[in-house]
Amino acid sequence: MRLSSLFLPSHRALNLLALTSLSLTVHPPHLLAQTLPLPEQLIALNSPAGQNLLRESEAQADFVPLITQYVTQENQAFCGIASMVMVLNSLDLAAPLAPAWNRGYFTQDNLFNAATEAVIPREKIAQQGLTLEELAGILASYPLQVERHHGADVSLEQFRQLIVTNLAEANNFVVVNYLRRAIGQERGGHISPLAAYDADTDQVLILDVSRYKYPPVWVKVEALWNAVNTIDSVSGLTRGIVTVERTTAPHSFRDR
Amino acid sequence: MRLSSLFLPSHRALNLLALTSLSLTVHPPHLLAQTLPLPEQLIALNSPAGQNLLRESEAQADFVPLITQYVTQENQAFCGIASMVMVLNSLDLAAPLAPAWNRGYFTQDNLFNAATEAVIPREKIAQQGLTLEELAGILASYPLQVERHHGADVSLEQFRQLIVTNLAEANNFVVVNYLRRAIGQERGGHISPLAAYDADTDQVLILDVSRYKYPPVWVKVEALWNAVNTIDSVSGLTRGIVTVERTTAPHSFRDR
Repeated sequence: MRLSSLFLPSHRALNLLALTSLSLTVHPPHLLAQTLPLPEQLIALNSPAGQNLLRESEAQADFVPLITQYVTQENQAFCGIASMVMVLNSLDLAAPLAPAWNRGYFTQDNLFNAATEAVIPREKIAQQGLTLEELAGILASYPLQVERHHGADVSLEQFRQLIVTNLAEANNFVVVNYLRRAIGQERGGHISPLAAYDADTDQVLILDVSRYKYPPVWVKVEALWNAVNTIDSVSGLTRGIVTVERTTAPHSFRDR
Repeated sequence: MRLSSLFLPSHRALNLLALTSLSLTVHPPHLLAQTLPLPEQLIALNSPAGQNLLRESEAQADFVPLITQYVTQENQAFCGIASMVMVLNSLDLAAPLAPAWNRGYFTQDNLFNAATEAVIPREKIAQQGLTLEELAGILASYPLQVERHHGADVSLEQFRQLIVTNLAEANNFVVVNYLRRAIGQERGGHISPLAAYDADTDQVLILDVSRYKYPPVWVKVEALWNAVNTIDSVSGLTRGIVTVERTTAPHSFRDR
């Protein structure tokens, strides 16, 4: 490469500059790229490869119910809250009133009540997010059967089995608490629901609730197991998964 | 029916009462059923039949991109705004700052700017929603190629062709403005994106943005065509569809 090419904008760069200035003319606010680059070992659901994996997925009973309830975490600490809203709405539980619509529907605001405050106050969640126990505790305050599995307590085979069994069945769901940087993402502890499993490649689909930051990704089960086998400094325990099952009949007409 | 059966709760009603009172014991806030019953001619995406239609759908390039950006309209008048947020994020356009996350991402708040105010003020949208022209006008204020087709201007065959062609291609999308009661739902004019088409049954999938009220539904193309061939009293014109295509390169790393 000639030295000058480092300084002279290429044809493509000039095009981008032209487009940028056009955009800036039309939209005075600063415009920003959406989402961060993915590490090579992760496959975006949106990519052709990611959509292929979904088509071939052997365990995806949870995919449509969950993704139709996909939400973005409302603030940096609400990954667990957003994950629970998705699960509670997917399970079609009787829901508290959502005042904006005057209907029953779980939101990242009306999920909270006296029972959840007793597990951990909302204000504290806004500061530090949720540990695996607190996540399970809030879910258990609803009429659900909840199981908690810390990374240190399950072998890779057990971890895979728990996930695959759950994803193959509708009306129960699995939420994962993992360390992002262990799978090559930025950066700390995170919580999101799982939606599908592909046996051929041994990968699982995370419906990442920070949609402003990352797309849903396929990740190797072993990589995710390593990422839950990390210590949460708040609890002093390893992260892990929570499985959730409805113990009452669905309340709406959605599945009839 | 004996008169007494109108007053005596049935076995099923008693069961529902028992469930309700149990739930009320666990959760003091009033609990409500999610979503309304669907008319027989509509199939919920969530149902086994609805998921089968998706698996067999011949044109579903838009499904994954759109549903990963699924949002609920923030108030009763923002169906068009929510639909556009889904489309803009699915198209991966450079986005304004979303302050809650300090990243670029379209929301039902930062979508508005001086250019959209010139089409129709936000305050007016909050009162009366959007007409098809206003929907197209706001989209055209972004760097997009936008086409508007009123129901009165397209035959059933043209309507089907526009939808199927669009849904078979990624990176362009179609938003529909229809009269709910014409397809058996409650009740007025509504706007939502379309996500997939099934040729065998000639049905199209609407990703209804009022998720607190209805699930995504499969509807016959002819029924939807009839529902766009209705007069919007605000514009005095028929409803219809808007197609949207990106005119610039994607700005994020999502598809790379």
